[in-house]
Amino acid sequence: MTFDGLWAELAGVGRDRTSGGYRRFAWTPAELACREWFLGAATARGMSVERDRNGNLWAWLGDGLAGAAVVTGSHLDSVPDGGAFDGPLGIVTAFAALDVLAARGWAPTCPVAVVAFTDEEGARFGVPCIGSRLLTGALDPGRAAALRDAEGLTLAEAMRSVGADPAWLGAEPDRRARIGAFVELHVEQGRFLADTAFPVAVAEQIWPHGRWRLAFRGKADHAGTTALTDRQDPMLAFAASVLAARSSAVRLGARATVGKVQVSPNATNSIPAEVVGWLDARAAEEDAVRALVEEVASAAHLSAERDGVTLTLTEESWSPAVTFSPDLSARLAALLGGAPLLPTGAGHDAGVLAAAGVPSAMLFVRNPTGVSHAPGEHAEPADCHAGVDALASVLADLAS
Amino acid sequence: MTFDGLWAELAGVGRDRTSGGYRRFAWTPAELACREWFLGAATARGMSVERDRNGNLWAWLGDGLAGAAVVTGSHLDSVPDGGAFDGPLGIVTAFAALDVLAARGWAPTCPVAVVAFTDEEGARFGVPCIGSRLLTGALDPGRAAALRDAEGLTLAEAMRSVGADPAWLGAEPDRRARIGAFVELHVEQGRFLADTAFPVAVAEQIWPHGRWRLAFRGKADHAGTTALTDRQDPMLAFAASVLAARSSAVRLGARATVGKVQVSPNATNSIPAEVVGWLDARAAEEDAVRALVEEVASAAHLSAERDGVTLTLTEESWSPAVTFSPDLSARLAALLGGAPLLPTGAGHDAGVLAAAGVPSAMLFVRNPTGVSHAPGEHAEPADCHAGVDALASVLADLAS
Repeated sequence: MTFDGLWAELAGVGRDRTSGGYRRFAWTPAELACREWFLGAATARGMSVERDRNGNLWAWLGDGLAGAAVVTGSHLDSVPDGGAFDGPLGIVTAFAALDVLAARGWAPTCPVAVVAFTDEEGARFGVPCIGSRLLTGALDPGRAAALRDAEGLTLAEAMRSVGADPAWLGAEPDRRARIGAFVELHVEQGRFLADTAFPVAVAEQIWPHGRWRLAFRGKADHAGTTALTDRQDPMLAFAASVLAARSSAVRLGARATVGKVQVSPNATNSIPAEVVGWLDARAAEEDAVRALVEEVASAAHLSAERDGVTLTLTEESWSPAVTFSPDLSARLAALLGGAPLLPTGAGHDAGVLAAAGVPSAMLFVRNPTGVSHAPGEHAEPADCHAGVDALASVLADLAS
Repeated sequence: MTFDGLWAELAGVGRDRTSGGYRRFAWTPAELACREWFLGAATARGMSVERDRNGNLWAWLGDGLAGAAVVTGSHLDSVPDGGAFDGPLGIVTAFAALDVLAARGWAPTCPVAVVAFTDEEGARFGVPCIGSRLLTGALDPGRAAALRDAEGLTLAEAMRSVGADPAWLGAEPDRRARIGAFVELHVEQGRFLADTAFPVAVAEQIWPHGRWRLAFRGKADHAGTTALTDRQDPMLAFAASVLAARSSAVRLGARATVGKVQVSPNATNSIPAEVVGWLDARAAEEDAVRALVEEVASAAHLSAERDGVTLTLTEESWSPAVTFSPDLSARLAALLGGAPLLPTGAGHDAGVLAAAGVPSAMLFVRNPTGVSHAPGEHAEPADCHAGVDALASVLADLAS
């Protein structure tokens, strides 16, 4: 199985020795190394590679053939200390599936592409699915270029530093229109399949979800000499908001997480000048997400006012509910012997394409613990191989 | 007034252009530049400079004279985005006071030193007053050498990287015994003097205070796909502890601050694996501080247990109440025309020396807003000049 060889090639790239997790952030050396690997894998298969205006990589097979293209793939970037599978599994299985088909002497009757979308996680610039959103026009190129990373560098500056021109950024309607079908294979990020006999499932829908930035601004001062009544300490309203988000999520049957915080100046003996927290909220219904964010905002404003602190709340991203193409999903489930259909709380490039009208579907490969976005994220080799076979069946079906 | 010239020389060193605050952390280029400035200022005054085993700098006048030494000075390092005055004011006024005395033709009858203690703020390695604590034996040299900064570098490694040998670290009882009196001038970190006609006050005592590290360890996972019931999210118990600390402080008449947080992996779409918060607690009475820390620990443990999170609580530093030498303080207050006596919630190297039996005292220079540990920290030039004159009177009195 060529899967194992390809997988081994990527395993060491961008891995943190201490945590055992990956730190492959967009346009950093670790992610550039992954892109270089993609170029090599495509070239070794006689596929022509192009980088589109938004930095997404496309490896083409039968590029000269007529008809709409069948596209598969995922992304190479990771969250901080992320797992090995979220993203790369969809790209490695794509190349391996084409190898399986080539070994059978199969050739496509329409163009086939393996795609690596750039910055799916949004770990560096705060907005997820930057590459696919720019491609479909869902993200304004001016806004994207001005996004800043934790060091204050803009996406435009990060691109220029590796010789890419941010002036290219923007929607590519012709490229989007060329995609007849997009199928993204992904590691499951839950434990549904772990309790079944199925190594692979088909995605049904993606929950509506978004990210909100809560910036509490107070007044830095000495922790020892400033009386409690003289303080404008933004840490208190931040803490109250964290607890409010969990209470609302429980009550509304939603999911709320505050996983990222930036404190300034972040010193033990200084009252903070500013505490910025990010709220990630999702639910099966859009109304529940909106209600949750309103409840958190109201609790946050109340606490901030009491402590003489200002609150700036910004919606950094919003992804409405996505239902994948029912026809395509049903076709895939039938091809895979009646594989189960699953909803998911995670966003994906396939969801961005589906929202833009591209017939899209997803395959999930079983994850024994359900852990994701952490070093413990895992799929057994046999299940990965089953994913390769499933993707080969799907490609042979769609591109013949 | 030579004060203004000396002050201007230091003003640009280690200043952050964005915040306007200072980032002079121990053994970093910005702090090395301050040390270089100290060397130049001492040399220009014909003072011999030595670096002691713990990295503290001593500039000597009349080093060959008999008798116990009269020492003045403070520290050059800062908190992140700290003000210009906390530390450097005590050193600049010391050199300027000697200039005032020299211009009068005065010469000491015992050795006089200006000292710059290293890493007073503890901003880099977490423990404050490292230089004075090592000198007096209050900090174990092995523990000090193993302290790590935010990048994981130990104090020993940081020292080696600038050619200093951490094997030297440790108590210097002979050096300590040589100090007959230590007077530290410091910017006031409160607004007591702002409402009086006095530009300078004398310190009476330092409140007992300490730092505690609360490390909440949970399980990293995907923020979108992990059910609330499957989570071990350490952010919740952290938030509950922040609010508990404030409630306890109000009830006990104490001061509690959580000004520093480290989240791992710190990603918007990941449940944190770990949240570490630092609690700074102080009060007029030791019992109140101890009660506060117990209440916070109890609330933190309760929350952690509920969420399936572990808590490791570590006392990183503890400074008992310090009462400065009553004789010396009364002598200073009388010399300064009945200057007021003030308690303070802030720790200082003078407190460390006082706790080790060195007759010690402090002078506070008026701060119009009371702000400290922030870019807005300020003292009017006329008040700084009054501080120079006060220190000159004190040195002339003690070293004649």
